[in-house]
Amino acid sequence: MKNLTSMIDIQKSPNSKLSQTNFDNLVFGQVFSDHMMECDYKDGAWQNPVIKPYGPITLQPSARVFHYGQAVFEGMKAYKDKEDKIWLFRPDQNFERINKSSERLAIPEFPKDYFFNALEELLKLDKDWIKQGFGNSLYIRPFVIASEAGVSASAAKEYKFMIICSPAQAYYSGEVRVKFSEKFSRAADGGVGYAKAAGNYGAQFYPTNLAKEEGFQQIIWTDANSHEYLEEAGTMNIFFRIGDKLVTAPTNDRILDGVTRKSVLTLAEEFNIDTEVRRVSVKEIVEAAEKGELKEMFGSGTATVINPIVGFGYKGKKYELPKMEDSYAKFFKDKLMKIQYNEAEDKFGWRYEVK
Amino acid sequence: MKNLTSMIDIQKSPNSKLSQTNFDNLVFGQVFSDHMMECDYKDGAWQNPVIKPYGPITLQPSARVFHYGQAVFEGMKAYKDKEDKIWLFRPDQNFERINKSSERLAIPEFPKDYFFNALEELLKLDKDWIKQGFGNSLYIRPFVIASEAGVSASAAKEYKFMIICSPAQAYYSGEVRVKFSEKFSRAADGGVGYAKAAGNYGAQFYPTNLAKEEGFQQIIWTDANSHEYLEEAGTMNIFFRIGDKLVTAPTNDRILDGVTRKSVLTLAEEFNIDTEVRRVSVKEIVEAAEKGELKEMFGSGTATVINPIVGFGYKGKKYELPKMEDSYAKFFKDKLMKIQYNEAEDKFGWRYEVK
Repeated sequence: MKNLTSMIDIQKSPNSKLSQTNFDNLVFGQVFSDHMMECDYKDGAWQNPVIKPYGPITLQPSARVFHYGQAVFEGMKAYKDKEDKIWLFRPDQNFERINKSSERLAIPEFPKDYFFNALEELLKLDKDWIKQGFGNSLYIRPFVIASEAGVSASAAKEYKFMIICSPAQAYYSGEVRVKFSEKFSRAADGGVGYAKAAGNYGAQFYPTNLAKEEGFQQIIWTDANSHEYLEEAGTMNIFFRIGDKLVTAPTNDRILDGVTRKSVLTLAEEFNIDTEVRRVSVKEIVEAAEKGELKEMFGSGTATVINPIVGFGYKGKKYELPKMEDSYAKFFKDKLMKIQYNEAEDKFGWRYEVK
Repeated sequence: MKNLTSMIDIQKSPNSKLSQTNFDNLVFGQVFSDHMMECDYKDGAWQNPVIKPYGPITLQPSARVFHYGQAVFEGMKAYKDKEDKIWLFRPDQNFERINKSSERLAIPEFPKDYFFNALEELLKLDKDWIKQGFGNSLYIRPFVIASEAGVSASAAKEYKFMIICSPAQAYYSGEVRVKFSEKFSRAADGGVGYAKAAGNYGAQFYPTNLAKEEGFQQIIWTDANSHEYLEEAGTMNIFFRIGDKLVTAPTNDRILDGVTRKSVLTLAEEFNIDTEVRRVSVKEIVEAAEKGELKEMFGSGTATVINPIVGFGYKGKKYELPKMEDSYAKFFKDKLMKIQYNEAEDKFGWRYEVK
């Protein structure tokens, strides 16, 4: 992969926005780096990959993405170590997943060499947008949209693959409390919940806004059939610590197979943390909280890494979690970030150097 | 409504594409009329409605619609009668529904006066795009997209409402056979199935493509929990005729409340057709087909009006329906179209003249 001749047309930006960017006061996903990658699918093939100055795109108002949500995305991060080396974390997983998402959305698979070549060239061009220091990163957003004009309700024949990059600090600020969903659902069995499909996210905003009015920052989605089992948080997978046992729901066709989630499970095994991957009932968690056995809850995801949850709400009752000295959330976050920032041994081959 | 002073900035197209358009050979949703309507939501208000020449739109690649599918739409048609008068069919229903969809997608409500004023001005400008004759119409596509730049996963603060128009003949051609879904699902309880949310449509393309490979044109979605009950077809609601009884599923939060569906139910009542609105099990329909009691199946929707279904497939078996002389599908299609084209009395006040 590393020795590939660049197959991407690179158009350098004549000027950089770097000097106008305040890296100490970044809002997630608001500022974008100097360049972006674009590649079109036409006549049955992905073609003309180009890296060019970040800027607007022009589409017909009948483009299918506007009408039928035929769109998928990924979230990744680039990290800079103390020697200014640039690292990605398990990018193979993101590559595989965007194509798995695409398949479910009837979008053609994106080629692996274009994907990695684009990432490398883009990150080398925009390397000054990646700042050293724990928590600092360049958030990378690969996405695919159905660009074909025409509103007939069928899969498009033309698509646009893009990568845009946004410098990031921590994703969530402040304490996070979650509501266990009692009525609304995120995904159906046999649906697209396992895919990073655009429509999965827009569908969550309204219920999340209602939860915000009640003082929660996020929703933990429950299964649509019974609302008895806890699934995921929409932008995070969810872990529970009951006593010293780590518990999380298995992935299925409703739950995203999170890269951070699977990395936490691997680390838990390495460090002999007793772990159960199984259905987690609301009843069990409420009872554990009432008995004082629910020690922690935390979310995992690329944007957030590990996000501690300090309390939850269910059927009008609010539960607060204890403050733990030997927090699993803190433990995993530290372990993961040390690997991501090249400050710890990479036992599992998760790091990928951009050079 | 009719006497409102136009509040819309109208920019006429300097030239028309009419003469280049072959109205005898239209592919659904491919050709668009000369003008479109656009209105932006910014700073907490819908503002600057404009009708202008149909053309591309420009958005930041970080616009939320590309990433989070925060988008809804409607489908309507304008008809021309023998005296060149222009008619809409129950546009109040589409107006109400787009705002119901928007609410679920956390999109701000669109104002009624803008909606109707835009429709009227746009249709008057593009009246020559509406051709006389049964089956001919101008398909109208109002839609809303989250236009705000920035990839944080929350509802946008900026939106674009648009109306584009495409001349149409019949939507489906050829015989339509449907597959009863055994594995894939369209919507979850507590989800967005009742909304015309963009993501609901993109999610159907892949399962529909698989069904097409088996010789079916559409899927009849079943409930995600058990796959035992027939719900809707994604672009159509579905009716069954068992003996002389008309049966259709009730609307719920998974099923779109179709304008054509509810009009069929009203007509069925008017003409004393025995009707049941209740859950329809796959088992019942398969058994009725085997006994020869399933006389008809048809879909209803704005694009298709009434679409007869000639057969269905379930668990590898294919069932063909009889050819009926006194077809309900034909009856309702004729009744509906005569009302739509101002050739029959409008008992229920469904027609809306654009003048």
